[in-house]
Amino acid sequence: MAEPVVLINSFEVPAPDAENFITAWGKTRDYLESQPGYIETALHRAVTPGAEFLFVNIARWRTAQDFMTAIQSPGFAQAAAGLAGYQAHPALYGVVRT
Amino acid sequence: MAEPVVLINSFEVPAPDAENFITAWGKTRDYLESQPGYIETALHRAVTPGAEFLFVNIARWRTAQDFMTAIQSPGFAQAAAGLAGYQAHPALYGVVRT
Repeated sequence: MAEPVVLINSFEVPAPDAENFITAWGKTRDYLESQPGYIETALHRAVTPGAEFLFVNIARWRTAQDFMTAIQSPGFAQAAAGLAGYQAHPALYGVVRT
Repeated sequence: MAEPVVLINSFEVPAPDAENFITAWGKTRDYLESQPGYIETALHRAVTPGAEFLFVNIARWRTAQDFMTAIQSPGFAQAAAGLAGYQAHPALYGVVRT
């Protein structure tokens, strides 16, 4: 599978929580962008009414190991504490077709 | 919300069906890329073992209306028939933070 890897993380967020979620996501991003292997990230918000996942984060990391190391590093749990209340569906991906 | 819009469609696919799914996805892409407003697409396959969504399609369209028109057009249902057996979670998104 080609590097870099793509993290796709879909979040179930009630619409009234949207601004709180964005703030919490920003704190998590601030931490992760300081970690080795981080390339870029983009938070997507649904424009489809009633979407199952109001937010989807799509990030690029140099390797899967870099990402795993980052989320197991000291400091991550505290940085991401604000996201803990939202059901997340994360996995790492590679592009197979365009 | 800024244009273009991003379609994020997460698919639940059993691992043994992966090649069949990719073939069916390719037929759907062949149809959609001929439609007005299509910009690009990329099919992502999970590298995380046991991922809930084995495949995630991320596509860009000029506008939400272009995408809706394309999937309601004559020919779409037949082109996408091979995907009908897989649980999909589609929605349209815009980038709100990077």
